[in-house]
Formats: sequence, structure tokens, C-alpha cells
Amino acid sequence: MNKQKGFIPGLEGVVAAQTRLSRVDGQRGELIIAGYPLAELAGKATFEETTFLLWHGCLPTQTELTAFQTELAQLRPLPGATLTLLQAAARKQIPPMDALRMAAGTLSLDMGERDAPQMAQVITARFPTIVAAYGRLLGGETAVSPDPTLSHAANYLYMLTGAAPSAAQTRALETYLNTVVDHGLNASTFAARVIIATQSDMTSAIVGAVGALKGPLHGGAPGPALDMVFEIGAAERAESYLREKLERGERLMGFGHRVYKVRDPRAEVLGIAAERLFAADGDMALYSLAKSVEKTAVALLAEYKPGRNLQTNVEFYTALLLHGLGLETALFTPTFAIGRIAGWIGHCFEQLENGRLIRPKAAYIGKTHLKWQAVELRTSQ
Amino acid sequence: MNKQKGFIPGLEGVVAAQTRLSRVDGQRGELIIAGYPLAELAGKATFEETTFLLWHGCLPTQTELTAFQTELAQLRPLPGATLTLLQAAARKQIPPMDALRMAAGTLSLDMGERDAPQMAQVITARFPTIVAAYGRLLGGETAVSPDPTLSHAANYLYMLTGAAPSAAQTRALETYLNTVVDHGLNASTFAARVIIATQSDMTSAIVGAVGALKGPLHGGAPGPALDMVFEIGAAERAESYLREKLERGERLMGFGHRVYKVRDPRAEVLGIAAERLFAADGDMALYSLAKSVEKTAVALLAEYKPGRNLQTNVEFYTALLLHGLGLETALFTPTFAIGRIAGWIGHCFEQLENGRLIRPKAAYIGKTHLKWQAVELRTSQ
Repeated sequence: MNKQKGFIPGLEGVVAAQTRLSRVDGQRGELIIAGYPLAELAGKATFEETTFLLWHGCLPTQTELTAFQTELAQLRPLPGATLTLLQAAARKQIPPMDALRMAAGTLSLDMGERDAPQMAQVITARFPTIVAAYGRLLGGETAVSPDPTLSHAANYLYMLTGAAPSAAQTRALETYLNTVVDHGLNASTFAARVIIATQSDMTSAIVGAVGALKGPLHGGAPGPALDMVFEIGAAERAESYLREKLERGERLMGFGHRVYKVRDPRAEVLGIAAERLFAADGDMALYSLAKSVEKTAVALLAEYKPGRNLQTNVEFYTALLLHGLGLETALFTPTFAIGRIAGWIGHCFEQLENGRLIRPKAAYIGKTHLKWQAVELRTSQ
Repeated sequence: MNKQKGFIPGLEGVVAAQTRLSRVDGQRGELIIAGYPLAELAGKATFEETTFLLWHGCLPTQTELTAFQTELAQLRPLPGATLTLLQAAARKQIPPMDALRMAAGTLSLDMGERDAPQMAQVITARFPTIVAAYGRLLGGETAVSPDPTLSHAANYLYMLTGAAPSAAQTRALETYLNTVVDHGLNASTFAARVIIATQSDMTSAIVGAVGALKGPLHGGAPGPALDMVFEIGAAERAESYLREKLERGERLMGFGHRVYKVRDPRAEVLGIAAERLFAADGDMALYSLAKSVEKTAVALLAEYKPGRNLQTNVEFYTALLLHGLGLETALFTPTFAIGRIAGWIGHCFEQLENGRLIRPKAAYIGKTHLKWQAVELRTSQ
């Protein structure tokens, strides 16, 4: 393929948006969420507060927060047709991210004409209902109806299990959702911006983002990091297991990050959250095992990949924390979407404000003046 | 808002892909489709031939074409859950593009694990089934099952009306679908590329593209151009009507194009196709009226906007041709999608081959070191 002048593969280094939502500083290992360093916000805010912050640029007052919580809570129940679709998908054992994408596209069915801010609330409120219902349907159980008296995060855990969560469990999930709420112009966020930039609707943009998040290159596959901990099984086996893996040239899932060169600030926040969760409600044996595996892995990575500074990343602690909350591995990425949706929507608001179509160019590298040939004259090429 | 250095609004002028699918040359008024000038291909190829050309880089031999037609024809029936969803959407009178996006997302429901080339066929084969079924359901009629003995285009017209179309009608629709099959890196095509570049699935990419195509800034709203012809009603009223509109500073829908400065090559091809269709099967009075309106509009535009060279664009003839085929205005954009899907999928194949994530950067323009404040201490901003 001849390289066309000007083609920028992957749009690497191109600045495609201006944002007030988050700043990812890989060199300094810093993540700012709408003005707040992640560690300042993630462990304190409810998910409703963080969502309000991203959409309005400031944390809500008590009056604003109460109104916002109430609006979201009322919007949680799904349209009948959405539930019917999820049941059909569960009968076919469709993977949860596909089911989430299908269901998300139908969320406007009982809404009539709604503007972007209204649909933003509808979609955000209903993502946990979709994921929890589908998780239960996949396992042959019936869906649990949302409880409007619970917070967004607590209600998600309630719909998953049928039991109200502890305060420690709710706090752990809030911290997780806040931690993954936004992360610069990642591929799913960019997909949402490209779609909404045509002045299409919020649902279309979010469905596109879910589709992009599904892709293995997007990152965010926390399952394998935990699988490794389970495979190791006991702290004394960690070193031999990991050493063999590294000798074979395999990657250790849950360590290292493309952008963060020093440390992943999200791993730090989630590590603290996981420790608190396990101390309060969890299986401390699993937690201790995971910490041993982590310590051994970081030490061995320094030995095998000197100078690379490969640290524990967000996926390692995500897996530990979500597992500690009782989630199946298959629901990890859909739960990531439940958090990230607030960021996707915030980016959509910014893009709508900017009001401009995103339309780069393609360089044509094909032929130009072929002549039509009737089908009977064509030969295999 | 302080302008961040390097931000490229709309990614204007940035080359984000290399393609062999189409070349849009606005200065010369030329459109190349996979090596063929549009006029060389559009009026001769069946839609199956054009689709094969875009996906494989060459026109099919007779054997290849027969196999491809047969495969597509067998895939046309929709999953039961998709039809149920369309019925629910019709009860709520959801607009057709929303219904198409919802239904498209569910097309893998009866397919199990399929790779990208297989899903490409499934989605392409089923788009006309969705649109025709939904058009009928919206009008309170029952869906017509696809007829596997008819070509892709003929079967779409059959499913819309319940009657097999004439050869002239089928040819007119083939020419239309071929004409809109690809057009560089427009916003919906770019959305599909961003999504598939994460190595997500074909369905996710196409659902994203449909969502982008919905947006008013995407272009492709052929309804209004025809509405104007109907409002004028008689050739002798064209000049006064159009002159008044121009005096009021209003835009004439169906004339002028952002990219094509000389003439829109698609308008030329569709103009010929429309004339043939109306001569064979159509309402020649409407055709003559439309031609009068066009002639008057182009003359008046030269008078009111000298030097701008505002010519008839693709939307004007699209509206005339699709109306001549008996389509409701509400189905014009979904029918556009039935053609463009072959291009979307061709771009997805190219992007998968390239194998690289599309991930530009955002410039952060917000604050950086805010301190957490408890909710009761916050004041309205």
C-alpha cells in the first residue's frame, strides 16, 4: 500500500476536542475529573454527585442533588419491549455487552419526544436496570424491579442480588463508578462525539459508544487479571507461576498501561477501596492472595522488564473490587459502562455546544478509470 | 473559551483513513466508486454487483454473483424478536430511522457466533426487510415476507407494496442504491470506522453509523426538496414562488453542495434514472413540473447568488425518484441507509485490515486542583 501524504494512522496526536471533563497526564500519573484530582473525588462523591459534576461543571447543592436523585430514581424501570428483548437475548445466551447495546437502543420506546438532557437522564438511570436484569435472566432468574428509595449504586447491587447492600458495598461501587467515569478522548467517547456531532440523538451516540467499548482494543477487560489470581490459588505458588509466564514471554494481565508511565492513579484509588470493602464485608483470604500476587508480579516485572516501571493497573483492582461485590466476570465490562456513561454524555453535551460536524478526509488509493464489463465477460481475479 | 493550540475543529482537512472504496473530487465534480466513474457503474450494475465490488475490490464473475445473490436472499427473514420490537416501535409511532437503529442492533439474535464477513451479509440482507416491514407496520398493515426469487432491490419494492415491481422500477432503485453506496469519509462512515477499529463487531459499527446518519448535519434529507415541488404545484407558479423565497433570504432545498463546486455527479446519474422511470411507469405531469421547478431554480440561483454556481444536488433527484417508486418521504433516509450500508461495511473491512485503534486526543481546558466540599457547604454557582 503506497502511503498517502498526510494520512495519520489512528489519528495519533491529533487534538479532536476541547474538554472540561477530564485530563489524563500519563507522565505525572495524574487524572483530573472536572477539576478534581481523582483521589480527592472518587472516595467521597456519590455517583449522582459525580454525574451532576460532569454534566453541569460543579458539584450539586443539597437541593439540586435531591432533585437529581429523585428524577433518576423514577426513570429506572425499563419499557416492556426492552425487557421482552432482554428475555429473547437471554434465551440465546447473547453476551452481556451485546445485550446492553441492543437494549440501550430501545430506551426511548416509552419516552415520546425528549431532548438530549432528558434522554441523558433516562439512559443513565436505566443502564443498571438493563445490566442487572440481564445478568439475572442469563442465569435463569427473574429480574428484580428497581427500588426508588435506594441510591443509584445501591439500587444496582440490590437489583443484582435481590438484597439491599451494606454501606461498605455501596461505597465501594460508588468509588469504582467514579474512578472510571471519564478518561479523556478514548475510543468509545470519541465514537459518541462523532455520532452526536451530526446533531443526532443521545441514544444513538450512547449505543455507538457501547459498541466501541465492546472491542478488545478499547481496553478495559478486567476478567483475565482475576483469573490469574484464581489460577495461582495460594501465595506460595505466585512466584513460580509468574516466573514461568514471564519466561515464556507472556504478558501479565493487570500490569502496565499505555498512557500512565509512573503509576495509574485509578489503581491507587481502587486499591484503597478494595481493601476497605474486603475488610468490612469480604473474603480476606482472597484479598491477601491478590496482594501477594500483585507484590510478586511487580517485583518480577522489574526483574524481567527493567526500566519499564510496570505497575498494577486499573484492571487488576477493578477485578478484585467487582468480584468482592459479588459480580460475575461477564458483568465487569457492562458495569464499567454504567460508570462511563456519565462521561460519554458529558462529552456529548460539550460536542452539541460546539455544534460542528466531525468529518475528516480519506485518501483514495485505488484505481480511477475502470470500464464496465458485462458479467459473462468477467474472469476470476 | 481559550483556544488550545493544535485543536482541529471538526477534524477538517485531517486524513484519517486510506481507502479504495470511493474518491470524491468536488473541484472536478467527479465520484469514483471502487475504480469506476459513477456514471460508468450506477446505471448498469445490480446492487449485489456493486456490493461485491466494494467488499472484494472487483466485480463478481457469474458464478460468484449467483452465489452471493443466493446467500443474501436466504438471510432476508428477520429474527422473531426483531419483528416483535418493530411492532412495539410502530405502536409508539417511533420515527423510521430510530426503528431501523433499534432493529439493526438485534440482527445477530438468531445467528450465534459469526465473523465480520458473515455478519456483513446478514445485516446487508436484512436492512430492506426491516425498513419495508416497519413502513407497513407504521401504516397499520402487516409485514410482507421477503421473496428469495427476487433481486435485493426488487424484493425491497415487493416487501413495501406486496406486488412485484416492474423492470423499470427495479432498475431505478438499483441505480439509486448504487449512486449513494459510498461517498468518502462522511460522518456515518467515520463513526463505523471508529467503532470497528476497537475490533468490535460489525453490528456495533453499523448501528453506530445508522445513529450518525440520523443527524440533520449529516446531510441527506431529501424530503424538503420534494415538498417544495408539491407546494409550487404548477409550472407557471414556480418563478414567483422561488423568487419570493430567495427575496426572503431562504435556502432552496435540493440545490448546491458543500463539496461539489461544479456539479454533483450523483444528480446527473439520478436525473437520467428518474426520467427513465417516469417515462416507463410514472406520473409524467409530476416529472415535468419537477423539471420546470429545477430549471427555474437554477436560473434564479444564478441571478441571486452570482458566481456560486448552485446546481441541482443529489437530494432533489433522490426525492423525485423515490417518490416515483411509491416511497413515503419518511422512508427516504432509511432507504439511503439500505444503499450506504455496503459502503459502511466496505470501510469496516478496510479498517479491520489496518488493525489500529482510532484514538485522537482532547485538550483539557478546565480547572485542575479543586478541593472537595461537603454537600451542605456548597452554594449555587
